[in-house]
Amino acid sequence: MTIFDTTLRDGTQGEGISLTAEDKVKIALRLDALGVHYIEGGNPGSNSKDIEFFRRIREMNLKAKLTAFGSTRRKNSSCEQDINLKHLTESGAVAATLVGKTWDFHVHTALQTTLEENLAMIYESLAYVRNRGMEALFDAEHFFDGYKANPEYALAALAKARDAGAAWIVLCDTNGGTLPNEIQEIVSKVVSEINAPIGIHTHNDCELAVANSLAAVAAGARQVQGTINGYGERCGNANLCSVLPNLQLKMGYRAVSDEQIKMLTGVARYVSELANAHLPVNQPYVGNAAFAHKGGIHVSAIMKDSKTYEHIQPELVGNKQRVLVSELAGQSNILSKAQELGLNVNPEHAKSRIVIDRIKELEHQGYQFEGADASLELLLRDAFGDTQDIFTVESFKMMVEKTAAGMVSEAIVKLRVGGQQVYTVAEGNGPVNALDNALRKALMQFYPDINRIHLTDYKVRVLDEKDATAAKVRVLMESTDFKDTWNTVGVSSNVIEASWEALIDSIRYALLGMVKKDALADIPREELGLVNL
Amino acid sequence: MTIFDTTLRDGTQGEGISLTAEDKVKIALRLDALGVHYIEGGNPGSNSKDIEFFRRIREMNLKAKLTAFGSTRRKNSSCEQDINLKHLTESGAVAATLVGKTWDFHVHTALQTTLEENLAMIYESLAYVRNRGMEALFDAEHFFDGYKANPEYALAALAKARDAGAAWIVLCDTNGGTLPNEIQEIVSKVVSEINAPIGIHTHNDCELAVANSLAAVAAGARQVQGTINGYGERCGNANLCSVLPNLQLKMGYRAVSDEQIKMLTGVARYVSELANAHLPVNQPYVGNAAFAHKGGIHVSAIMKDSKTYEHIQPELVGNKQRVLVSELAGQSNILSKAQELGLNVNPEHAKSRIVIDRIKELEHQGYQFEGADASLELLLRDAFGDTQDIFTVESFKMMVEKTAAGMVSEAIVKLRVGGQQVYTVAEGNGPVNALDNALRKALMQFYPDINRIHLTDYKVRVLDEKDATAAKVRVLMESTDFKDTWNTVGVSSNVIEASWEALIDSIRYALLGMVKKDALADIPREELGLVNL
Repeated sequence: MTIFDTTLRDGTQGEGISLTAEDKVKIALRLDALGVHYIEGGNPGSNSKDIEFFRRIREMNLKAKLTAFGSTRRKNSSCEQDINLKHLTESGAVAATLVGKTWDFHVHTALQTTLEENLAMIYESLAYVRNRGMEALFDAEHFFDGYKANPEYALAALAKARDAGAAWIVLCDTNGGTLPNEIQEIVSKVVSEINAPIGIHTHNDCELAVANSLAAVAAGARQVQGTINGYGERCGNANLCSVLPNLQLKMGYRAVSDEQIKMLTGVARYVSELANAHLPVNQPYVGNAAFAHKGGIHVSAIMKDSKTYEHIQPELVGNKQRVLVSELAGQSNILSKAQELGLNVNPEHAKSRIVIDRIKELEHQGYQFEGADASLELLLRDAFGDTQDIFTVESFKMMVEKTAAGMVSEAIVKLRVGGQQVYTVAEGNGPVNALDNALRKALMQFYPDINRIHLTDYKVRVLDEKDATAAKVRVLMESTDFKDTWNTVGVSSNVIEASWEALIDSIRYALLGMVKKDALADIPREELGLVNL
Repeated sequence: MTIFDTTLRDGTQGEGISLTAEDKVKIALRLDALGVHYIEGGNPGSNSKDIEFFRRIREMNLKAKLTAFGSTRRKNSSCEQDINLKHLTESGAVAATLVGKTWDFHVHTALQTTLEENLAMIYESLAYVRNRGMEALFDAEHFFDGYKANPEYALAALAKARDAGAAWIVLCDTNGGTLPNEIQEIVSKVVSEINAPIGIHTHNDCELAVANSLAAVAAGARQVQGTINGYGERCGNANLCSVLPNLQLKMGYRAVSDEQIKMLTGVARYVSELANAHLPVNQPYVGNAAFAHKGGIHVSAIMKDSKTYEHIQPELVGNKQRVLVSELAGQSNILSKAQELGLNVNPEHAKSRIVIDRIKELEHQGYQFEGADASLELLLRDAFGDTQDIFTVESFKMMVEKTAAGMVSEAIVKLRVGGQQVYTVAEGNGPVNALDNALRKALMQFYPDINRIHLTDYKVRVLDEKDATAAKVRVLMESTDFKDTWNTVGVSSNVIEASWEALIDSIRYALLGMVKKDALADIPREELGLVNL
């Protein structure tokens, strides 16, 4: 079974989903590790951000086929004159998905051309990208609506794509209005009439995108297109985080390895953090509540046998059981993380119990270590006495002022470093930058390396709290030393305090020499967008 | 087709979903207006809140059948001795749903009794509530797993329920692990073997709860159980907000009237607010983005005919089309938005060109209006001279200090309101809250209505900028007057200035009387989660 991920293209059409070129590179690397077969990176003909993404990613030697998206050529024109097709073939992608019309109504109403010209557009465009050495996929837009309206024409469009040498013909339920039994019936007909590998691309407007993908597979489709967490236009695309385990763990198809599918929960949460989109706790398979059991009868039953109230073992997709009464879960994850760091942990040991309890308490307060490995590592190393004190904060003060002359941001910090009090003031572009500058100024004489550390990303989210006065914010921060990056977290009812916490963690992490080599190590200095806010 | 709503019972098992007895009464009234046939109100045997709900609701003369939930009697005992069954029959509900085991594994492992005793528990318990004048429904827990493990026993349990006079036999996919084709096959067998009305109750652990409900209906089930917005344990129950329109608008079944199904969007948003659960923008049929169009090509097509990119008319379920203004879209989006606001725009007109250029320039700077309708409307109305000046900001100053004693946030604002200078200072939980409080204090004497405006959500993200010194943040803010909500945006290299911009837009929007009625109009003040950060 072939998995085609379009998180970076169709996923970014989702309301509120916006990814930088840098975010896209990081996500592509995670998708590649997960083992998806195609990664559609964007539309190089539509915007310069996507061109930038393709330029960066093509040096990374993905195992997946890097794919660029575009449309069939403009009507009454030629492929050679089409600027979008030119950008697409110059993107460096090894495969191209071209979307074309198969619904006669759309040819007349949206495209405003003849049925014949549309067929020529499909054939010529696919042949054009093939002739330039790319694998060609045809996205048959509105195929199911088109088939219901005019089956002969819809099939004729597919036949043109096949004749032009398309490696895959992907049937799209673009408006998301088709039901599973219709999908199954129509895909069966296509499979028997069109001799080519068939894919399926569904949307979730009826809350049926996952079911429709499975129905198409049952009828003979062998490629499923979708996005992580189902991001996408309107109600989203088919959610690969559900499609993949349904196909592999329930229906017996093989798409990725057993080890790779265990990454699913991590990938889902990682992508949601980069997209700054809340991952619903109740999301199937990967949500925090997907295997959570409230007190009472269910809990006593799962204690006897987890199969009583769990449809699969949560570990198969990298998730875990949570028992909401006694937070027994999670502990094994924390222990395995600590072992990964080479710390000598034993669950029976008093010190281990203390740090586990501390992490649970922090998670309860709203900390999330999924996107903040550096903060978690600090917490563990601190607990096991594996760090030394490098400085302590006595106080800080921050002022932002707006006058007719403009904005001024100023910060004062008082630290104790090696028995000595250091008291500095600095300006910045904004409050976090001012605090960062003041901190840097205080530490520079002791740790000249601090000059290499810079903030590269900053995200703030209000946490769900029913009690109004207790509303909290979580700040996620990413830093770099121009070779590697690391992530930290802070939580407070005050956004400045939360930022300060994440900042202190970031600097301690770097000064303690904990930075790890990562996949971005090759990105030259000038490519990284720095943040001074 | 019969719709059985269990939002007030199974829905409250969802993580983070918690409803007071008062909330439940309000929701029951809305469900009754929507036209569902059964309203399961809770488990009067398990908690006093549910007893209180039944006491209040039974005076309201619902058209729907008010239903109480409970289990079959305890093993090796009698119904007369069962305190839960006693509470249930005294609840005042006209119908009772009794859940019982049909999976032999559960009888042995969870219940730890014999297969024969379990059959007796089913028969006697249903007969008991029937004899006390209630309609009896049997929830066949884990029926699909049970059928797969031991079909004879699973069917024998259903036959017992039928023989005891159950009005409905409801097949439950309790663990949510069954696939639609299995559901359809097993329901078909039950329909042919058990001569009784059959219902279906599914969970969403494979993201298939809606599809599984439809598959059961296709196989002959005539009652669907579910919850508003799919709330429920783990990944939730079948979402009635999708099941109902799929059945009625797509499959031709009649469940409620055409007028009633138009209430669906309003009910979904009302319940989400009372449950203090964020309604996902991408929720099918009822979400704010369910009929939102972003891409330039899509928008120009829906202008020609909305059927090109909409699977149903949004008005059929009480939702509406939205045209999102985004970097990917063009001027046609902006024009249609202005027309929606009743502004006289003509693309050839000089004023129109100026405002379009201004919006494009702002988007280039990083503003994003798709999540900030109120800021966009202000911009358009300001450009067309459709607003008056209500105040101008001369300066503001904000301080955050951390000492050993804790955090202090303080703000000073200097405004000019109607020729008069106003100068105020206030504290807050954090910098934005302090600024908000100072602003509020300054404006209160002129606009007492400002007390009704509150911040409900706040998001910050860093924009992709290659030039380090130009890095910017975007703040998205959501506000409420306890009747309606609106969204604003601010962009700056300084997070405080960006927050200030969004705050000023929010307050101007409300004070200029631009707030639109939306589906939340009835929610009382104390029900909303506020944010003071």
